[in-house]
Amino acid sequence: MADATARDVGEFGLIGRVVERLGTSPYVLLGPGDDAAVVAAPDGRVVATTDVLVEGVHFRRDWSSAYDIGRKAAAVNLADVAAMGARGTALLVGLAAPAELPVEWALRFTDGLRDEAALVGAAVVGGDVVRSEVLVVSVTALGDLEGRGPVTRAGAQPGDVVVLAGELGRSAAGLALLEEGVHEGELVDAHRRPTPPYALGALLALAGATSMCDVSDGLLSDVRHLTRASGVRIDLDDADELFLTGGEDHALVATLPPTAVLPDGCRVVGRVLAGEGVTVAGEERVGGWDHYA
Amino acid sequence: MADATARDVGEFGLIGRVVERLGTSPYVLLGPGDDAAVVAAPDGRVVATTDVLVEGVHFRRDWSSAYDIGRKAAAVNLADVAAMGARGTALLVGLAAPAELPVEWALRFTDGLRDEAALVGAAVVGGDVVRSEVLVVSVTALGDLEGRGPVTRAGAQPGDVVVLAGELGRSAAGLALLEEGVHEGELVDAHRRPTPPYALGALLALAGATSMCDVSDGLLSDVRHLTRASGVRIDLDDADELFLTGGEDHALVATLPPTAVLPDGCRVVGRVLAGEGVTVAGEERVGGWDHYA
Repeated sequence: MADATARDVGEFGLIGRVVERLGTSPYVLLGPGDDAAVVAAPDGRVVATTDVLVEGVHFRRDWSSAYDIGRKAAAVNLADVAAMGARGTALLVGLAAPAELPVEWALRFTDGLRDEAALVGAAVVGGDVVRSEVLVVSVTALGDLEGRGPVTRAGAQPGDVVVLAGELGRSAAGLALLEEGVHEGELVDAHRRPTPPYALGALLALAGATSMCDVSDGLLSDVRHLTRASGVRIDLDDADELFLTGGEDHALVATLPPTAVLPDGCRVVGRVLAGEGVTVAGEERVGGWDHYA
Repeated sequence: MADATARDVGEFGLIGRVVERLGTSPYVLLGPGDDAAVVAAPDGRVVATTDVLVEGVHFRRDWSSAYDIGRKAAAVNLADVAAMGARGTALLVGLAAPAELPVEWALRFTDGLRDEAALVGAAVVGGDVVRSEVLVVSVTALGDLEGRGPVTRAGAQPGDVVVLAGELGRSAAGLALLEEGVHEGELVDAHRRPTPPYALGALLALAGATSMCDVSDGLLSDVRHLTRASGVRIDLDDADELFLTGGEDHALVATLPPTAVLPDGCRVVGRVLAGEGVTVAGEERVGGWDHYA
């Protein structure tokens, strides 16, 4: 049954095959197969975040492989955990899928989740599979703060530098190529499978980050979260439009005191000032992304 | 704008209004509004589970109010936490919704989540709102074991009694009435808004439960999980068909040594024997629920 569907194997058949592919990690005290999983939270606190991806809105099965969609669904959540300065420990996945979904798609999707989670030492610990006319993937990531305080969006101080970990504009450039019919190349791959700088989240926290967030909607849009929560103005250095507005790279942007020693792989891309709003080389900018706009 | 839609207020407008309604709890160290939430895990372990509800499959907006759908979406997850012998601490919710979704629906849904979570002392700590042609609700519940071991599905021993906490058959009876066009009454309400016996999960654990699970698909179907995981046979007492096969009440079924002192609100409904499979008064039974069958 190389081309079996969810309907052919049934809910429990599908779950059984998915669970067989999953790895584990030292954080997993009780994995899939019970009413709930049990995950170590050695810090006594757990970081938790959820993101939902909808076919046709967040991904297209003709543009991305099941494996890449699994990688991306894990990455967008694990990047949120990293943005708190935490380490990802576990993923839970809800898969709402048509009865016609090929089992092979679900298995390759699972492989993607598993492999992306393994990058940070996390594992898939549970989930749910239900029938739906539209393919919807919901992932929850858990994380451990390892004794550090969470780095929130509030806390940026005038005088801080704005620091970027990871790359920007590559996913948006890849998406533009896909829309033009180009289906291969580094940029297209960057869109299909973002590579958040996971380890730099904890390193930026250790370096003294005063605020931090994930760059999912574009730098200009996401630093606005920091200015609002912190009550400051951010002035970004001049850069090209894709760098400033391209979304879905899942880089991290943080603010640190000017005396901070930056971890390797980070660079200064702006400054925190008194006031409000976001400017680029001193000029006002607007823009951003809204799922219902 | 009493009849505003998600499109009218936009993603961030909708999230802002939803967050305003949420309560908090002592477990919430950092609530909604950042990249991730931070929840207390005083036990050093966290229980985690996810369930997905799809419009037309798990609920109908013409049969259940937004508030009741919120209550139910929280309940099905918090029942899973209780079935581990744990206490619910936090919910995360992913809402994939059409642009035409009335804002009022999302707010009443949120109220339902909040009020059900409050029953166990939990709160909604985070989530995601995205656009989708189909309304899909994904909820993750976290829980704390309060120093107890998790009660898994494995561990039932021949000689144990099978114990039920909560009621069975009422949700299925209510669903049958709804299908016949009856939209009012206690049974219909039981379908719209299950009432899992949350506190009895921890009390059964303290009483020495050797295995436990949530009854979501019907008693016959769900005790099969206990027999498979524990390598035992379960013989249920004779009872009416709705009691044995009706799903969605989210009662708890556990096994305990025959000498155990049962918490108030529990009753013996069967016995654990050597062997395999499930019988009713000694007779073989099959049946169950598969989302793709």
